[in-house]
Amino acid sequence: MFKTCLENVRNSVPLIHNITNYVTVNDVANVLLACGASPIMADDEGEVEEITAICSGLNINIGTLNSRTIPSMLKAGKAAQALNHPVVLDPVGAGASALRTETARRLIREIRFTIVRGNMSEIKTLAAGSGNTRGVDASVEDVVTEENLESAIAFVKDLSARDGAIVAVTGAIDLVADAKRCYVIRNGRPEMGKVTGTGCQLSALTAAYAAANPGNCLEAAAAAVCLMGLAGEIGFSRMAPGDGNAAYRSRMIDAIYNMDGQTLERGAKYEVR
Amino acid sequence: MFKTCLENVRNSVPLIHNITNYVTVNDVANVLLACGASPIMADDEGEVEEITAICSGLNINIGTLNSRTIPSMLKAGKAAQALNHPVVLDPVGAGASALRTETARRLIREIRFTIVRGNMSEIKTLAAGSGNTRGVDASVEDVVTEENLESAIAFVKDLSARDGAIVAVTGAIDLVADAKRCYVIRNGRPEMGKVTGTGCQLSALTAAYAAANPGNCLEAAAAAVCLMGLAGEIGFSRMAPGDGNAAYRSRMIDAIYNMDGQTLERGAKYEVR
Amino acid sequence: MFKTCLENVRNSVPLIHNITNYVTVNDVANVLLACGASPIMADDEGEVEEITAICSGLNINIGTLNSRTIPSMLKAGKAAQALNHPVVLDPVGAGASALRTETARRLIREIRFTIVRGNMSEIKTLAAGSGNTRGVDASVEDVVTEENLESAIAFVKDLSARDGAIVAVTGAIDLVADAKRCYVIRNGRPEMGKVTGTGCQLSALTAAYAAANPGNCLEAAAAAVCLMGLAGEIGFSRMAPGDGNAAYRSRMIDAIYNMDGQTLERGAKYEVR
Repeated sequence: MFKTCLENVRNSVPLIHNITNYVTVNDVANVLLACGASPIMADDEGEVEEITAICSGLNINIGTLNSRTIPSMLKAGKAAQALNHPVVLDPVGAGASALRTETARRLIREIRFTIVRGNMSEIKTLAAGSGNTRGVDASVEDVVTEENLESAIAFVKDLSARDGAIVAVTGAIDLVADAKRCYVIRNGRPEMGKVTGTGCQLSALTAAYAAANPGNCLEAAAAAVCLMGLAGEIGFSRMAPGDGNAAYRSRMIDAIYNMDGQTLERGAKYEVR
Repeated sequence: MFKTCLENVRNSVPLIHNITNYVTVNDVANVLLACGASPIMADDEGEVEEITAICSGLNINIGTLNSRTIPSMLKAGKAAQALNHPVVLDPVGAGASALRTETARRLIREIRFTIVRGNMSEIKTLAAGSGNTRGVDASVEDVVTEENLESAIAFVKDLSARDGAIVAVTGAIDLVADAKRCYVIRNGRPEMGKVTGTGCQLSALTAAYAAANPGNCLEAAAAAVCLMGLAGEIGFSRMAPGDGNAAYRSRMIDAIYNMDGQTLERGAKYEVR
Repeated sequence: MFKTCLENVRNSVPLIHNITNYVTVNDVANVLLACGASPIMADDEGEVEEITAICSGLNINIGTLNSRTIPSMLKAGKAAQALNHPVVLDPVGAGASALRTETARRLIREIRFTIVRGNMSEIKTLAAGSGNTRGVDASVEDVVTEENLESAIAFVKDLSARDGAIVAVTGAIDLVADAKRCYVIRNGRPEMGKVTGTGCQLSALTAAYAAANPGNCLEAAAAAVCLMGLAGEIGFSRMAPGDGNAAYRSRMIDAIYNMDGQTLERGAKYEVR
């Protein structure tokens, strides 16, 4: 039940450690507060292990990756894994530069992530590992549509089976899968793409939901994806004439702040395949 | 008079140098503009002494502390002190990692701060200096309540006497003290804790208020604390159905933007002990 | 036609690479989305050449300059120039520290910028190059007024002739000039100065407009300057009682989001001298 997932976050107030980009970091902090969790941002190699130890989940986002924070990501990820904390990877821009692609792949090799969340281009970049000659624009199309849905579901299940992480691919249709089951989610609005950081926020939400719902991470991740999409719908319904992407940015976070379990349960549009 | 403190900021437009975290830095800049001051953010070791020299106050915040900026904080702090500028420390997360705790303590040993502002856990971490075997959860409770108010007041006065800085502890009840006098402030709303960075914003405000009110820094710091709390109250009164922490974030800064001396004077809820 | 400039951005969705400060970076990303462009932020030396190669414009902003990102700016700038991409410099705080002044001058020596946008103090700092004994507060006054307009126009034209970049000086009156022509623009509101980052946003807009209007960069830059000013006017007209600089910040971006070519064409207040 997504309702229970949401309430577990609000009741347990999980502290989430974020090593994230400086573009959307403020929204990530506020969305974690909005959903009932609590954020800490810390990226110095000298403290990430200690910080992650006092948290109950870790969110790694490579959106403004730099050489100083790569060792921090590795250290924090390994420390969190050793403590059995859920660890989320958001491979922002994987495929756009060798630094991002190689760092994302190295992170996946060295850390067992609980959830990897990205758009299809990023996820495909990760899937095309070393020794695999497929480029990032291979068999599965970049946009999940009703037409290619079957093969996209098979792709994310296969990837989850290979890496052991829940794979969350977001877009017009969202897929959240482990090796056996895939949530196909149809919440959200196209205008969400005009607000920077909705993906980053969602990754942070999945970390909070996984942290508060141990042993039930697939459903928790799917609940977080529905939550973000539903917040996009509710936020959009509150737009006034003259409002644009800046107002929408706030209204989405506000919708998460005001979300209760029943609203999420009723508004979630998904099937399990 | 808090009214005079506020008007001195608006009339003198103090330029405030901030070495601060990347989570809440935009809000810190906008809240300084809102109160009538002007912000500069600069954290490279190669320029912080020059930048602080053209400002009239310095705000150091360790919220996303990293090895690159620690020497910058030390250099800027010493330069500002040599120029008799007010220097504020916000020891974000002191106690959460050795890096933060040791850096905050080192800053306090090497720089004579005008104001140290944090929550009770952070301030207690600073109080338990080297040679002191008490942990951060020692005698004074972390939350100031009506029940432990007496001992909390004694604690902040003692700490101010020891370090020479005005101590501002914020929470449900705020305390702003030097060695002899303590403002006990009851402005604010619990919902402020759901917006990231209200503490960071307040620290920046105290720097602006101290810069514009030389020789009267205790009252200036208390005025800034009342201002932030009152802005939380006014901002909350403007919340519409469906609004959440993102709307609240803007409404608080807007309340500071529109605050005048008379409104602050009337709305401030405090006693001096 | 400014209308065409705007529509070219919306139709071509130029990807803009930003190496920018962490204070206003979120607004820069959202304003690029609002105008119809798409942002990427990347500042690590190890990836900036690759990232800029997949973009169609580069925006360099020294607002929180640090030693790590200076080589990144140089590498990205040279790579973008080699690809004939428009490159914009925003010399934030040039004149405030030797690090900023020298870095800005070095960038201008080593990279042929398409547009340099700043306030008059910053632009004058750049103009007073090595071997020039004038300080930054020399002959041309810092604020462009109707009284000194003639000499200000001559100054920006001369500077553009010297450096080969379009010079955009913004303030109460904005000037956008190449060596021969100068747009004198009277859009905007004084309250825009109370929102951090309107200048940073404008620089990013000029990069998007130049990228989408190759061969017509002077008009494109002028269109972007009018767009920002007009958004300031429209945003201000939507302010409600109790709103302040935080609400204004959002309303300006929203106005850019909703701007169409006809509104820009009608609202633009300029003459060409």
